Amino acid sequence: VMATAGGGGPPEHVSSQVCALHTDLYQVTMALAYFLDGRHETDACFELFFRRHPFGGEFTLLAGVSEAVRFIETFRFTAGDLAYLRAEPALRHAPAAFFAWLGALDTSRVTVHAMREGSVAMPRCPLLRIAGPIATVQLLETQLLNLVNYASLVCTNAARFTLAAGPGKELLEFGLRRAQGPDGALSASRYSYLGGFSASSNVLAGRLFGIPIRGTHAHSFVTSYGDVGEVANVTVPVGPHGSRLGAEGSPVNLRDRALHHIAAMGLEARTNAGELAAFISYAAAFPDGFLTLIDTYDTLHSGVPNFLAVALALRDAGRRAVGVRLDSGDLAYLSREVRRRFREVAAREREPWISDLTIVASNDIDVPTLLSLASQGHAIDAYGIGTHLVTCREQPALGGVFKLVEAGGTARIKLSQDMDKMTLPGRKAAYRLYIASGEPVLDLLTPDDEAPPRPGESVLCRHPFDEAKQVIVVASRVEPLLACVFASGRAVPGVHAPLAEMRAFAMSQLALFREDHLRFLNPTPYKTSVSPKMYAKIRDVWRREAQIAEIR
Amino acid sequence: VMATAGGGGPPEHVSSQVCALHTDLYQVTMALAYFLDGRHETDACFELFFRRHPFGGEFTLLAGVSEAVRFIETFRFTAGDLAYLRAEPALRHAPAAFFAWLGALDTSRVTVHAMREGSVAMPRCPLLRIAGPIATVQLLETQLLNLVNYASLVCTNAARFTLAAGPGKELLEFGLRRAQGPDGALSASRYSYLGGFSASSNVLAGRLFGIPIRGTHAHSFVTSYGDVGEVANVTVPVGPHGSRLGAEGSPVNLRDRALHHIAAMGLEARTNAGELAAFISYAAAFPDGFLTLIDTYDTLHSGVPNFLAVALALRDAGRRAVGVRLDSGDLAYLSREVRRRFREVAAREREPWISDLTIVASNDIDVPTLLSLASQGHAIDAYGIGTHLVTCREQPALGGVFKLVEAGGTARIKLSQDMDKMTLPGRKAAYRLYIASGEPVLDLLTPDDEAPPRPGESVLCRHPFDEAKQVIVVASRVEPLLACVFASGRAVPGVHAPLAEMRAFAMSQLALFREDHLRFLNPTPYKTSVSPKMYAKIRDVWRREAQIAEIR
Repeated sequence: VMATAGGGGPPEHVSSQVCALHTDLYQVTMALAYFLDGRHETDACFELFFRRHPFGGEFTLLAGVSEAVRFIETFRFTAGDLAYLRAEPALRHAPAAFFAWLGALDTSRVTVHAMREGSVAMPRCPLLRIAGPIATVQLLETQLLNLVNYASLVCTNAARFTLAAGPGKELLEFGLRRAQGPDGALSASRYSYLGGFSASSNVLAGRLFGIPIRGTHAHSFVTSYGDVGEVANVTVPVGPHGSRLGAEGSPVNLRDRALHHIAAMGLEARTNAGELAAFISYAAAFPDGFLTLIDTYDTLHSGVPNFLAVALALRDAGRRAVGVRLDSGDLAYLSREVRRRFREVAAREREPWISDLTIVASNDIDVPTLLSLASQGHAIDAYGIGTHLVTCREQPALGGVFKLVEAGGTARIKLSQDMDKMTLPGRKAAYRLYIASGEPVLDLLTPDDEAPPRPGESVLCRHPFDEAKQVIVVASRVEPLLACVFASGRAVPGVHAPLAEMRAFAMSQLALFREDHLRFLNPTPYKTSVSPKMYAKIRDVWRREAQIAEIR
Repeated sequence: VMATAGGGGPPEHVSSQVCALHTDLYQVTMALAYFLDGRHETDACFELFFRRHPFGGEFTLLAGVSEAVRFIETFRFTAGDLAYLRAEPALRHAPAAFFAWLGALDTSRVTVHAMREGSVAMPRCPLLRIAGPIATVQLLETQLLNLVNYASLVCTNAARFTLAAGPGKELLEFGLRRAQGPDGALSASRYSYLGGFSASSNVLAGRLFGIPIRGTHAHSFVTSYGDVGEVANVTVPVGPHGSRLGAEGSPVNLRDRALHHIAAMGLEARTNAGELAAFISYAAAFPDGFLTLIDTYDTLHSGVPNFLAVALALRDAGRRAVGVRLDSGDLAYLSREVRRRFREVAAREREPWISDLTIVASNDIDVPTLLSLASQGHAIDAYGIGTHLVTCREQPALGGVFKLVEAGGTARIKLSQDMDKMTLPGRKAAYRLYIASGEPVLDLLTPDDEAPPRPGESVLCRHPFDEAKQVIVVASRVEPLLACVFASGRAVPGVHAPLAEMRAFAMSQLALFREDHLRFLNPTPYKTSVSPKMYAKIRDVWRREAQIAEIR
């Protein structure tokens, strides 16, 4: 079921829960009704799209396409699935021929077009367009929504955290313990990385997807030590920067050196002894990866001096410490204070690199916290982000939907008292129009059989519902947004690109869009328009289906 | 990897993502530091608890214990895991003996105590208490938090929805498409059922956990039909209530009868013909399970008359329709209007059962919506709830933590500037004290080696931090809250009870607690107190570890 990413190849993982039976029961009852009515093989086309960007923003990063296609590739009901369905009360009266049909069902007659994974996607534009026998495609709906909705949501959230942290900051995903079960956590790790995070704490995500992993120690490691006398492993061999002590070459006793430096600071027996012990133990185990959590007892009065004493002990052994993590308190103030102490020690010891030790901050960080930290001034280099990233607290679901747009060759619509919930009928093509500066200006939906707009020509672009809103665009470049990703039972090469490649594409997509579309406060909407033919088609189908209410 | 629930037995499912490697990297780096320091086998005790109830409430239902114990039972690193870890840059310098130790590691020396799954749980009280070699237990932390946090959160959320809907209403979980990936959805289905939901739309959850499943059709089923002439499957044999037509025994043509009833209502060609076709097709496929979505085009002017015409056609065939689902609009108003029309037709046709047809409501329902519906008056019998249930939008994470309370026989504490984040040191026992009415009055934490409080005796119960707050309780019953669930490598019988049994226990737990603890507005807090011995121990350890800050 699981395969390793290995060699920079594509992420291979499809969890054991991604399977044909993982669907809403109504897909199966509809399939039975279609089957009994003899229309289960009717040609149909469905589109997966969302109506509004999440988080009050004006962009969404599409994610989950590769996983969705893997699901379609492997879609089959097992004998056990069929036995379960046969026993289900709602289906007990279904004929044997229906279960035989279900058992033989595959996706060899399904064709899928999709936007590229990592694309900036806009409302109402098809993210996936799935054509095939109506009952078969209907049976794909729920799992496809499940795979695309959360993936795109958390990927977009990750991009927003990255933008809020600002350039040059590193973001680390720490969400495993707060995600919706194990697979929620893996999805969070995978798609946060796609959205711009640098690494994850999740070891399994590292193994499965080739994501860089990070981690040092918890508070419990610190509290497990009571006194410096408890540390057994205290010596390290001299490292790359050479010993500062007389006996060149012989291992350095970190405990002796740390106690020496604590005494030199005038803090002998004034910092927490268990914490100092834990730091010595950790430094002995990771002499070139010494990064410690400094807030277990008291950040500035115990954590920082204990860290610096051990960092200097490592320095004596020709090693350079990495840094500290703050996990509570006022992160702006504490990070500045910690940096100030680093600078003091760097100056006193004539070790300028100490000034630049890494400060990682964690503890319930959300986008407003990042924006506020940036406005206050701080000295943080990296953020560890868990709960708010993986739960997408600001908006925990993307409202992606899967709608029938064509059946038996006829365009279909779903009306609604809420105009926003009306669907755009018919199988559609989608294009992104760019102007000479290289900037995309709008996405255009047309009937699939309409000729694509051409660069250099005037293209009338209309709002799908509001008659008054139209604009003429002369595009310097026209990019078709949908490409075939699955046909004749096979994925098209390229859809399962390596995750790092998809990530680079996502970052290049964000770079294309104007800053005012991406900003946090009152972002400028980017338009999704329709061609005049599409506009006329909407009205035709609408008139055909709408009832005129009669009020008495 | 997956097993079927089968025969009312325990839910067997542990997903393929529940495994030793699914942890934060820092658990492995800490293990290495402990290993190199020779203290990896030190006896330690950790407690898993939360600090605050979710959703602004005053109760939490504990869930995930059975899955957590399954994880502990099967905990092993595989050869592939070890190969991955050996290649990880942070661990590349670790000695071969470390990986050999990891490869041989199991949980045979780990002992777990837990509260019973489905219990009402209170802040700071250990939900799980895990004792064993420090590095081993530390390696369990992340996956345990992942399994218990979301399970308890969504179970509690489900219970809140159930309470808000009020007695006699049925709640259906429809969250698969909006959950955090496939396993998030399965967890949501499993633990919503535990928290009081009746059924789920999720077929795989039905198969794996034995949860009842529900579903009828989507809007796409309706929009896929254009006209009544398209329906091929239109006849149903006469059912249990006997034919209303002359020719007793011969199958009834639902299309003819539905068109007859539409005409009798004076609505010929006034309702949407595709919708009527879809309803006829669905009724022919499910003559005894006819429940349709009535808002595709226009709820009152098309959906309701079309439904009633087909319901009457089914009645002509001796069948009784089930009801309708509303998925948009003003649910209070529409449900009352639909009920009024049901009553009118029931009276006119002298079919009183039509008055009582089921009205299911869905569409972005949250707890405030349910409370508002109840205050407005409505005619809804059942709710389909998705997004807000599974994402727990009101609070998408339970802050469950896993803290070291004892190492090498010494009680441990984590201090914090935030009093709320201080841990209670030492291995603890927990008791629930009941008064004569049968009502629980408080939970009491004591050192594990203190004699349990006895019924009929005065027990002094103190606030853990606030010296002024204390109360004397004379309990009529004392219930120990923690029981051994795993020891010597085996789960204790009973921990993997059937889900339906756990659900019944959860419901009985909610029934025990006073209504004012469970209510939505300003619920009364229920106390977690400590014994005087526990109180003294907290202060001893606190004094031992705290630094006295010096301000210059």
